[in-house]
Amino acid sequence: MNTDKYIPPVSLIAGGAGFVGANLCTLLLAEGRTVVVVDNFCRGHERYLDIARSTGGVLKVIRADLSRRNECLTAFSEASEFGRIVEVWHLAANSDIPAGVADSDVDLKDTFLTTSELLRAMKINAVPDLYFASSSAIYGDLGEQSLHEAIGPVLPISNYGAMKLASEALISAAAESFLERACLFRFPNVVGVPATHGIILDLIRKLQADPTVLPVLGDGSQRKAYLHVSDLVDAMLYIARRKDTGKILPINIGPMDEGVYVRWIAEQVVARVAPAARLVFGKGNKGWVGDVPRFHYSVERLVSLGWKPRLDSTGAVLRAIEDIVRQESQ
Amino acid sequence: MNTDKYIPPVSLIAGGAGFVGANLCTLLLAEGRTVVVVDNFCRGHERYLDIARSTGGVLKVIRADLSRRNECLTAFSEASEFGRIVEVWHLAANSDIPAGVADSDVDLKDTFLTTSELLRAMKINAVPDLYFASSSAIYGDLGEQSLHEAIGPVLPISNYGAMKLASEALISAAAESFLERACLFRFPNVVGVPATHGIILDLIRKLQADPTVLPVLGDGSQRKAYLHVSDLVDAMLYIARRKDTGKILPINIGPMDEGVYVRWIAEQVVARVAPAARLVFGKGNKGWVGDVPRFHYSVERLVSLGWKPRLDSTGAVLRAIEDIVRQESQ
Repeated sequence: MNTDKYIPPVSLIAGGAGFVGANLCTLLLAEGRTVVVVDNFCRGHERYLDIARSTGGVLKVIRADLSRRNECLTAFSEASEFGRIVEVWHLAANSDIPAGVADSDVDLKDTFLTTSELLRAMKINAVPDLYFASSSAIYGDLGEQSLHEAIGPVLPISNYGAMKLASEALISAAAESFLERACLFRFPNVVGVPATHGIILDLIRKLQADPTVLPVLGDGSQRKAYLHVSDLVDAMLYIARRKDTGKILPINIGPMDEGVYVRWIAEQVVARVAPAARLVFGKGNKGWVGDVPRFHYSVERLVSLGWKPRLDSTGAVLRAIEDIVRQESQ
Repeated sequence: MNTDKYIPPVSLIAGGAGFVGANLCTLLLAEGRTVVVVDNFCRGHERYLDIARSTGGVLKVIRADLSRRNECLTAFSEASEFGRIVEVWHLAANSDIPAGVADSDVDLKDTFLTTSELLRAMKINAVPDLYFASSSAIYGDLGEQSLHEAIGPVLPISNYGAMKLASEALISAAAESFLERACLFRFPNVVGVPATHGIILDLIRKLQADPTVLPVLGDGSQRKAYLHVSDLVDAMLYIARRKDTGKILPINIGPMDEGVYVRWIAEQVVARVAPAARLVFGKGNKGWVGDVPRFHYSVERLVSLGWKPRLDSTGAVLRAIEDIVRQESQ
């Protein structure tokens, strides 16, 4: 008699109750995976997982601050009760860039120490694969140069970008010493729901507070590429499920266009939410310290691997405005 | 009557009682600066500062672990009693790469959190300039490519390299938000005295323990560029005293040659210390996890700024063998 019990493979999502995490969770469950979400519920919410739960898949949720060693190790122990953890998706991070500029401890703890402790726990628990949500912010302000994966020097201009690059560095060393595989997904501005932060949500909330006027950070000339979250999680999963990308892969994920202007976004939000509102722009082409006014984001590597986004920046922003207006009216 | 008291400018050297720090200290004192050394004396020693003290300059020493917030802030308060801190030289780090591979906390604390806390203290104390001892280890193993400052992707393969890159990233963000100037000095293997670690010291000590046989890590085919510490501190000071290099400057410091083979170094040490000893090589071209077998280190940027080393790799190693044999016989 064979008494061996089937041990299901578990995908652990750090920060799985956040904006990107919740969307990814739905996709992993659709793959038939057992998913364990670990989140400190600082920016994440249980209700963000409603769609994931509706798939009927096996989803467990653990509340833990992964930047704390004991909580992180305990979370791995608890997750292991549901099966063998075969991969970690690390999406836990501070997502409020200006907050991180004001107090560097925010990004240090939420963005970097989560990486450091996750790696330690993965080594102890022999988890082979790590998929990391990095950022275009690691590149800093390289002016008119096209941002491709082999460009340098990478000199981030925000603590957020710095702690994403620091995380990449630590993951890279771990790939040399114990990880079997790591992907560093570098993505630019991502839009969609559940929206927790970002320009579209900000603008909509400002108009809800005062429908007559819309103050915009900066002079509106900042131009940025936007990716819809549905495309983002699709791309990450596509790359993760290919097994031919080597031990460590830094890869830009983004739309194929040059992006849209902040002024245009503000106009679309006004048109949708409060057509009578007057736009008032600030000064300078940086919305805040650490803001990158414009960049050319190369997704050649991604495209060469056979993936293309369904929505360009324009489409992503327009769809996100609809998504977020609906979210905010609920 | 003018009652204004002259407040001398102070150079603070974090890790100033270590190998590079002690050599730098002598040079800064020779410039007529008031120097405050802050060190945890974990790898540094009071006696390493003997030569610096013999200059007769104003040198103060504070014992503190700069990775601890309170100790770091207290050290800055104490240093401020001697004048106005106008620059920080950050040389505090774990220098034992294999130790950092075994326990990632070592580099996290000694190499990265020192940077994080120093930056916080500099912001509070309005210290404008930071000179940072980075490393060629940030580049990882890029094979046969020439390692210049604009190469990428930078994927370090040791926790040491990762935490140096993480430090660079944080300094880069600080340069955007509050620092006036930062230099990121990336140097390869540095040799000389006071030797605290490194291949030459290791080999000499092995021969002292057993003069009949010399076991060498790896197969001896690793080829590396070596810089003498006297050239290193000279280059750093040269760059620091130019004020035309921009807000943030990543810069390789190294010799202009392709380096020497580990086998050749071992032969020189044997010839000098125990000519009858038999060399025994290990396997593979990596001495340890995180070791980079060979690299081409570009110092074009440094040379274009008008600086050249006095010693090439061969000269640096030969002089260091003499230096260290003398040190070890004392």
